[in-house]
Amino acid sequence: MEQHSSKLLQNAVDAFASLPGIGRKTALRLVLYLLKQPKEDVELFGDSVIKLRNEVIYCQKCYNISDKHLCHICSTPSRDPSIVCIVENIRDIIAIENTGRFKGLYHVLGGIISPIDGIGPNDLNIESLINRVKEEKVKEVVLALSTTMEGDTTNYYIFKKINSPDIKVTTIARGIAIGDELEYADEITLGRSILNRTLYENALSK
Amino acid sequence: MEQHSSKLLQNAVDAFASLPGIGRKTALRLVLYLLKQPKEDVELFGDSVIKLRNEVIYCQKCYNISDKHLCHICSTPSRDPSIVCIVENIRDIIAIENTGRFKGLYHVLGGIISPIDGIGPNDLNIESLINRVKEEKVKEVVLALSTTMEGDTTNYYIFKKINSPDIKVTTIARGIAIGDELEYADEITLGRSILNRTLYENALSK
Repeated sequence: MEQHSSKLLQNAVDAFASLPGIGRKTALRLVLYLLKQPKEDVELFGDSVIKLRNEVIYCQKCYNISDKHLCHICSTPSRDPSIVCIVENIRDIIAIENTGRFKGLYHVLGGIISPIDGIGPNDLNIESLINRVKEEKVKEVVLALSTTMEGDTTNYYIFKKINSPDIKVTTIARGIAIGDELEYADEITLGRSILNRTLYENALSK
Repeated sequence: MEQHSSKLLQNAVDAFASLPGIGRKTALRLVLYLLKQPKEDVELFGDSVIKLRNEVIYCQKCYNISDKHLCHICSTPSRDPSIVCIVENIRDIIAIENTGRFKGLYHVLGGIISPIDGIGPNDLNIESLINRVKEEKVKEVVLALSTTMEGDTTNYYIFKKINSPDIKVTTIARGIAIGDELEYADEITLGRSILNRTLYENALSK
């Protein structure tokens, strides 16, 4: 690891290089860029990170990042509280919100069950989900976790835990992405897209 | 531009996305990573950047980033002050230092002459270079700027300004990179590598 001429420079480069996906060359490039910016901008940069970490609140209902005790999604009256979409992290909320196609609420698990990484059901927001689903008379739970073995395990665990005839448990559709060519699709996805085929007139109306 | 659920989150993402080469998705990923780190680590991160910007000093002699008035290179007695290598920025110093092949001192121009970007000789540390070269009885000036039109212009400007029979002006060797295949080399580089061919016994000793 190269040593820089200045301890201050070294510390800043070390800080950036500790971030995921940022190597030491990129870290140096970013730090030298910041060095050329106005002092106020650099202070804003540093403060914004510290402030976020110190002052951030998680929504008491869905564990979304929030400035208040209820996040902007949970506190919007026009959203349907009877449908709850289960996601792994808040990045998934952002992705689904960007589609504009979901009008229910969310529940952030904070991860998925992964024995290899030592993450069990008690490390995730699953108990609060089960309580929430029952107390708030949720009608549908939409599972939107990744299609890995861990995701499937978590899906199944939640499905078993909910175990109520009044609550419909659904998963988001898996299939060939719009614009993708069939010949390059993997067999499992293509197979599932045939099994779960939908009426053409339904596809038209979307 | 998407809006995030939290103003704090939004500010931090905006701050990261303002850095060169970091898009909004990467910014979000980095911010969510920091959010999971211990408070002390995040404070160290933010402080290291602010501190660097507020407290950094540039070496009075060569304009390298430094913690003192003379950088660690200029203040090392074993280095040869009669050879000065001209570089565009401190990243170039780091690159050359990493080779371990240069034992002289440096001079950081802080850019290169670029009329399109409105950068003229007076915006760079050229006057101080000329004074330094004359006052300190420098014997050789090594030009190590990039081989662009701007680099060539800057080289020529410095060459003309120094204009002294006592000072040798050299440039770093241009040629085929070690390991590169001739057939893929560009013609100008290949042509120059033939013109500037060196004695085989000299190449052997390196």
